[in-house]
Amino acid sequence: MSVPRHTEPKSDKMKQGLPDFPCGPLDLYRKKASFNWKEMAIFLEGEDVLALKQHVFQTLENDPIFARIPGEDLSTERMREITFRRCKQLFRYNFLTQDDLMENPWRIVVLNDCLGMYDWSLGAKFFLNKGMFGQTVAKTGSQRHMQFVQDTENMMTFGCFALTELSHGSNTRAMRTTAKYDPRTQEFVINSPDFEAAKFWVGNLGKTATHAVVFAQLYTPDGACHGLHSFIVQVRDPKTLLAMPGVLVGDMGKKLGQNGLDNGFAMFNSVRIPRENLLNKTGDVSPEGNYITPFKDINKRFGASLGALSGGRISITRMAVVNLKLAMTIAIRFSATRHQFGPKDDQEIPVIEYQLQQWRLIPYVAALYALNHFSKSIFMNFVEFQFGLMMQDKSDRQAELGREMHAISCSSKPLGSWTVQKGVQECREACGGHGYLAMNRLGSLRDDNDPNCTYEGDNNVLLQQTSNYLLSQLHAKQRDGVSIASPLESVNFIEDLDSILKTKFTASSMEQCMDSAVPLASYKWLVCYFLRESQRRLSQEKASGKDDFEARNNSQVFFCRSLSIVYIEHTVVQRFHDQTHDKDTPAGLRPVLKRLCALYGLWTLSNHMATLYQGGYISGWEPADWIQKAILTLCAQLKDDAVALVDAIAPPDFILNSPIGKADGELYKNLWSTVMQGNKVLERPSWWAEFTSDKPVVGSLRPKL
Amino acid sequence: MSVPRHTEPKSDKMKQGLPDFPCGPLDLYRKKASFNWKEMAIFLEGEDVLALKQHVFQTLENDPIFARIPGEDLSTERMREITFRRCKQLFRYNFLTQDDLMENPWRIVVLNDCLGMYDWSLGAKFFLNKGMFGQTVAKTGSQRHMQFVQDTENMMTFGCFALTELSHGSNTRAMRTTAKYDPRTQEFVINSPDFEAAKFWVGNLGKTATHAVVFAQLYTPDGACHGLHSFIVQVRDPKTLLAMPGVLVGDMGKKLGQNGLDNGFAMFNSVRIPRENLLNKTGDVSPEGNYITPFKDINKRFGASLGALSGGRISITRMAVVNLKLAMTIAIRFSATRHQFGPKDDQEIPVIEYQLQQWRLIPYVAALYALNHFSKSIFMNFVEFQFGLMMQDKSDRQAELGREMHAISCSSKPLGSWTVQKGVQECREACGGHGYLAMNRLGSLRDDNDPNCTYEGDNNVLLQQTSNYLLSQLHAKQRDGVSIASPLESVNFIEDLDSILKTKFTASSMEQCMDSAVPLASYKWLVCYFLRESQRRLSQEKASGKDDFEARNNSQVFFCRSLSIVYIEHTVVQRFHDQTHDKDTPAGLRPVLKRLCALYGLWTLSNHMATLYQGGYISGWEPADWIQKAILTLCAQLKDDAVALVDAIAPPDFILNSPIGKADGELYKNLWSTVMQGNKVLERPSWWAEFTSDKPVVGSLRPKL
Repeated sequence: MSVPRHTEPKSDKMKQGLPDFPCGPLDLYRKKASFNWKEMAIFLEGEDVLALKQHVFQTLENDPIFARIPGEDLSTERMREITFRRCKQLFRYNFLTQDDLMENPWRIVVLNDCLGMYDWSLGAKFFLNKGMFGQTVAKTGSQRHMQFVQDTENMMTFGCFALTELSHGSNTRAMRTTAKYDPRTQEFVINSPDFEAAKFWVGNLGKTATHAVVFAQLYTPDGACHGLHSFIVQVRDPKTLLAMPGVLVGDMGKKLGQNGLDNGFAMFNSVRIPRENLLNKTGDVSPEGNYITPFKDINKRFGASLGALSGGRISITRMAVVNLKLAMTIAIRFSATRHQFGPKDDQEIPVIEYQLQQWRLIPYVAALYALNHFSKSIFMNFVEFQFGLMMQDKSDRQAELGREMHAISCSSKPLGSWTVQKGVQECREACGGHGYLAMNRLGSLRDDNDPNCTYEGDNNVLLQQTSNYLLSQLHAKQRDGVSIASPLESVNFIEDLDSILKTKFTASSMEQCMDSAVPLASYKWLVCYFLRESQRRLSQEKASGKDDFEARNNSQVFFCRSLSIVYIEHTVVQRFHDQTHDKDTPAGLRPVLKRLCALYGLWTLSNHMATLYQGGYISGWEPADWIQKAILTLCAQLKDDAVALVDAIAPPDFILNSPIGKADGELYKNLWSTVMQGNKVLERPSWWAEFTSDKPVVGSLRPKL
Repeated sequence: MSVPRHTEPKSDKMKQGLPDFPCGPLDLYRKKASFNWKEMAIFLEGEDVLALKQHVFQTLENDPIFARIPGEDLSTERMREITFRRCKQLFRYNFLTQDDLMENPWRIVVLNDCLGMYDWSLGAKFFLNKGMFGQTVAKTGSQRHMQFVQDTENMMTFGCFALTELSHGSNTRAMRTTAKYDPRTQEFVINSPDFEAAKFWVGNLGKTATHAVVFAQLYTPDGACHGLHSFIVQVRDPKTLLAMPGVLVGDMGKKLGQNGLDNGFAMFNSVRIPRENLLNKTGDVSPEGNYITPFKDINKRFGASLGALSGGRISITRMAVVNLKLAMTIAIRFSATRHQFGPKDDQEIPVIEYQLQQWRLIPYVAALYALNHFSKSIFMNFVEFQFGLMMQDKSDRQAELGREMHAISCSSKPLGSWTVQKGVQECREACGGHGYLAMNRLGSLRDDNDPNCTYEGDNNVLLQQTSNYLLSQLHAKQRDGVSIASPLESVNFIEDLDSILKTKFTASSMEQCMDSAVPLASYKWLVCYFLRESQRRLSQEKASGKDDFEARNNSQVFFCRSLSIVYIEHTVVQRFHDQTHDKDTPAGLRPVLKRLCALYGLWTLSNHMATLYQGGYISGWEPADWIQKAILTLCAQLKDDAVALVDAIAPPDFILNSPIGKADGELYKNLWSTVMQGNKVLERPSWWAEFTSDKPVVGSLRPKL
């Protein structure tokens, strides 16, 4: 043998590198786990990434700028200040160089995960400048814009991305900001026709940004409008942070969450910018004022100029998963250490022992593992797509990949953000009153996750993109006999639509349902069913005289919307199922992953039971009963693994920042000591004299009749 | 005719008293409404109550202490201060005297509605002192405690209610605070054995309370424990607001919402209180130290000493409804004035015109009307019950009424709080980004509603009480042949369980489904079905060797829990259905109310479609299709009424406090002007020099390898 016997495999070294958890009340469950949590952590992340995460987390913990202060109660203004200071410090740490990213693009997601786990405002502030401004300029501009990117990298300037207006969000085409070219001075003149066209909701614009990528309708001197284009507009003086002349720029005020990020608005009053500030990848204006475009089709140009947005939804899907990781860690550790009731009055049991608590929480642990795997694999697909763009791949496959990525991301963002929004709420409730205490963090997770449902496209509006894609696939097959196949194979099975629609539920016992192949087959039927029904519904609407617009609108609820949801659920279950059957998945982890996959599949499938009955895929009393029993059985089987499952994905206590979720499981000690460290916790209120003197005369202000 | 022809009926006078809405963009829908919103307001509230509400609202609006300040961003400490000041002012206004309440007990709910619509922290602070402390003392104490009540009424002292402990909430029996009687000094000695037994989550205790009703295990000198009793314990000196010796009392810190209310904790170290401070309605201790009780059964005594809690759940059901009123007003007015997309690019339509938006919101308007009616009618039943208690009614009917009220309130609180929690989230998302802006209030509604799911009993735990009640009814019938009937008749139909279980879905077209009788009949079947299945499940669990505790725990998910939910949904639909068929319901309102009732019934029923199929109540493709089509048709029919439906229940703009929900419908003007009035909105940040100088050197803190 060429390998010396005493050399440890690399993963064993890493295992040693992962710190053990402190002994305590959670040992009970940690000892019962069916797998090694360190092996799981290494399998999920890889050693390289685990080391990066540890480095980032430790750096933040060791730097007082990032200190957590018990009982901290910051004003919005102060939150924005401290987030800016922390953001600045990130430039100094420069956790990832361009080389680091070229070597492994996944690292950018890992860094965002880490910053988000610490505080989403910080991650958002950092990446809105570097990504949404810097990368947009780099990708949609040209050589002449590189100085803007450079200035952003060095924080000489600070950037933001200004698309949304006060009165328009989803309908991007209807944006009303104008950029009129003036050939005399070779400048564009930017105008907001009125305050309803003010740029609104722009992250970093409230207090910090000096430069904005502004989307505006481009007019040439001949009066022609060439549609939405993006321009670099300076909004503040980097030397003073005072607004530039003609720019009315300010802060929108407090939001439900992410208050470290300064969202802002801007109105432009004949603001002149150099001709070169047009980001000219998809269209340019000559010094004389002639419009030049590499695209012939105005729709293609529009699509390309919004192309910069396409990665955002994949990133948001991931951000939602990260929130679920934090929330589940808190709720599972709480449930394993909180005792309440028991078979006898003096013998209380951990609340996770209750079937009801298991059913409330453990499916979300399964969702976390399913969506975690999905969000990573889809990012890798996106990297491939981006690489194709960079290489100017003009192949059909590249175009098809773009369409499929769009369809997947327009439904994965809704699925991810909604699942997590509901999951965090369930965690909040499952932790009872203690979940309602701000220090335990479930509130800020819910508030910070909430906008994932809205930005980069309202979830319900986005879902229409996915169903349009699926319907067009079916239509192409029916009209032209094209066979249905896509680069990522997410639609390939639809080729067999007719035969799939003839299939029936495959299991004939509760035990058989516990294999993820069962929900997977059901989902294939569901996708085909909703696809056929959606198409029929659309035809009926049109046949009854509705125009396209109305027919489409009237086919969303119960049809196209459901279609998009079952399509993405199928995709997520399929990918997770494949992972659990992959020979590269360690044997010691496969059993627990298979259980998680089956549970996730059955649990989401149970939302569609009525349809399975209605369409005749299942019938009789038993199938629904088997599925329910299988869900409860899987929850019970996973109950003793739940703590280890969150241990494998949990950040260190400093990052998690939740007394009831700390790794030592000393629920009450941690909670009590954090309460006692609060600000003025034992002091009488500053306004005590308001109580002790000036007593109210009851009814003194009551009107005399 | 004896009535002079020109005397207007009273309701016409009131109609004139209700101010018209300003003209504006909402006129479009106001003109299309099928009914008169003022007639609806008078029907729902009555003139007396409308006048009271107007008085309270106007009083608050006219008093600068209650002023709303745009862009206000208060610290937790400052919120607590301002809420206290406002609470003190309420004593001066003394909106309701004892006489007012005797004349119409509903007024107390109306006042709580009004204060809650303004700010739940204020309502909670006010009623925790007056109700949870004052009324508990009055009802569970005796003549010797009247001075405590009087002092509370005059704000000489301030009260709170201390039951929950750090480590025990739902399991009240397991509370560990002790009260040991010392006959030498004729005092009780109150002790917290350790911090896990600290009283926790007590509203008003954080900063304000001087006195607490403390629940503790009562020990007599013979060492016997007589179970949980309540005691008046002074925690702070009313002259200084400093803690009393031996009392460690403080503020728990920031919560997810209701931060004007100071929730607190207390630990007691041998705190001595007079023997007389025992609230002695359910048990007393003689000067010598002998325990005396009017109850023979220790369980009955426990039940009675917690009796003071029973009204709380009905009140919380109502509080949830009030939140839904506010949220729906905001979301419907927004949806009627926000335009996005349209059949042509230059012709955008209000988003409420989209079927998808209708389906997201209008069922919640229906839920609001259904739950509004329910919460009022159940309060009236509760008044009857309370009256019986006061009159010391020992009849079987009174006892049965108590059990039924308990079963209803233990399920109506979960139904109400969950419906509203989901509804407010839907409103937040349906208002897009603007819903995420704090000034529009949907965030605080969600945060303030959230604890309704938890306090006075975790929703999931409470639901077990309801199913226990229903199972015991069925059991009594089977064992003793007792026929099933209850004072409020909510269970009477179960008497026909066997024949109901043989019934099938009654409708045979979409049109027929649009009658609330259809979901009502389905619900009767569902209650019987889940009752039978729950009983079977329990028997199976026991037959397989599980003890009672485990059998019950393993019968909640998919069985007992579902049973409780369909029972309360049936009750709510039944009461609403009866109202729409009541001859006292004005003819002009009946059509819209019938549509709301049918929509609410079908919409909640659609959560149970799988069960209807599984149990054979429906079969084939059509019934589910009819129900879905009926839901969409009802939404479309109600679309033009939606604005008037919220107008009829909306508070004035000052109270609603949401720019996007203002009555004039000037969505963007209101939003923009509120943003512009924000604090330092256009100023550069105070920390601008942090940006302009001290630029970071990129990578300067990156570890050198």
